[in-house]
Amino acid sequence: MIVVKVGGAAGIGYDTLCDDVQSLREQGEQVVIVHGGSDETTRLAEQLGHEPQFLTSPSGHTSRRTDAEMIEIFQTACCGRVNKRIVRQLQERGVNGIGLSGLDGGLWRGRRKKAIRAIEDGVTRVVRDDYTGTVDEVNDGLVRMMLDAGLTPVLSPPGLSRDAEPINVDADRAAARTAAALGAETLVILSNVPGLLREFPDESSLISELARTDLDTALEVAEGRMKKKVLAAQEAIEADVPRVILADARAEEPVARALRGEGTVIS
Amino acid sequence: MIVVKVGGAAGIGYDTLCDDVQSLREQGEQVVIVHGGSDETTRLAEQLGHEPQFLTSPSGHTSRRTDAEMIEIFQTACCGRVNKRIVRQLQERGVNGIGLSGLDGGLWRGRRKKAIRAIEDGVTRVVRDDYTGTVDEVNDGLVRMMLDAGLTPVLSPPGLSRDAEPINVDADRAAARTAAALGAETLVILSNVPGLLREFPDESSLISELARTDLDTALEVAEGRMKKKVLAAQEAIEADVPRVILADARAEEPVARALRGEGTVIS
Repeated sequence: MIVVKVGGAAGIGYDTLCDDVQSLREQGEQVVIVHGGSDETTRLAEQLGHEPQFLTSPSGHTSRRTDAEMIEIFQTACCGRVNKRIVRQLQERGVNGIGLSGLDGGLWRGRRKKAIRAIEDGVTRVVRDDYTGTVDEVNDGLVRMMLDAGLTPVLSPPGLSRDAEPINVDADRAAARTAAALGAETLVILSNVPGLLREFPDESSLISELARTDLDTALEVAEGRMKKKVLAAQEAIEADVPRVILADARAEEPVARALRGEGTVIS
Repeated sequence: MIVVKVGGAAGIGYDTLCDDVQSLREQGEQVVIVHGGSDETTRLAEQLGHEPQFLTSPSGHTSRRTDAEMIEIFQTACCGRVNKRIVRQLQERGVNGIGLSGLDGGLWRGRRKKAIRAIEDGVTRVVRDDYTGTVDEVNDGLVRMMLDAGLTPVLSPPGLSRDAEPINVDADRAAARTAAALGAETLVILSNVPGLLREFPDESSLISELARTDLDTALEVAEGRMKKKVLAAQEAIEADVPRVILADARAEEPVARALRGEGTVIS
């Protein structure tokens, strides 16, 4: 079984991904797709006139400010736009995709962060009305039931808090949790770079192999969005997923290439 | 097993519905919820600056004009907003709701209408780029699998055309198809009126019982949105659903009341 996380950044289509999933299904491979919706959320928020905001943590990490209105927009963009777009493209290829959010069937239960520390104008303040959180429990039985029925699950944020609120969870890390819970052999994380770059954005500086003992160092090398992907890879590896591959979503046959070892292979 | 169709018109909340579903689940009853998204689609379209349009058929029936942009908005409103709102409210009550659209797992396959005749300025014209259609095949095995796993399915348009396009399908009629495919004992159709009224909008003119032989006459009495509901009732009854109840979504305990016979009972 393979779990594929696909990003939604500019330049990434789902056609080549879905072509690959079709081939893998024809070879009898079980595939689970996980996606996020950050860019589509920004697009929808702008269309609705709700300006996206971001928080910077004391350690310099940037995250989306997800107030009550924004979690609704995030949910709408992820479940109503990105998820159904992928399901439709699978159905076009005769692959019986089924879209689920973290809310559905309690797929991704987690904790909502009660307080987030953020720097604003040089001053640290505490944000308490944010709907951000992390997945700590995967309903793997539900996903297995779908796979056993010949379906291809397409999993999407938001997650479900203990108080049944939707929460903005990072899809890379949710994919890592899911791969671990399902006992997947491989987690492929696709984005708009060829893998982990020693000197971002120089694509010739691709790190093609990483041992699990190198992951702490890799976390320091990673920039921007790649930091979360390396963190997700680390969480997957520590939870006994044998292999994680950070690979290029923009290529033809992105999953097949990744499985052949193109990208950054962590094992 | 009970299939409950809930409307989304002004004044209809999902709290009382979800309270009822919780009680029914505690009594061991299997429940399938079906919803539409017409009002939420209009709201989202207006927010996005895409003015909703409607077509009038030569027989005087009004339907939404669903062009390529509108089917995307319809899908987003149904799957991203209404569906997840209901799933969340079920999860709040400890009911393990799972939201699916007609695309997911090929739940509602159907035909897209290749041409729609519409009257415009007194002239009949043919609209060919519309994404409207009807469900003619329900993946009842998928819904049964969910029910058997203790889940409460929450089903939403759009449907899936033979060419894997999303189609705007009427949720009342899709609910009728679903009830028939599942062999449900009862189909409850909730809306913002007490049932079928002999003299709309006079609520004291409620028709409390209807024989199946009266349905053709009832179709003539029904006005506006109620026409589709009576048509759906007729389709369900003709497909051997033993009982259909048109009832008031605005009441406390809307489903329990309907099951006690409040509304228009057709059998």
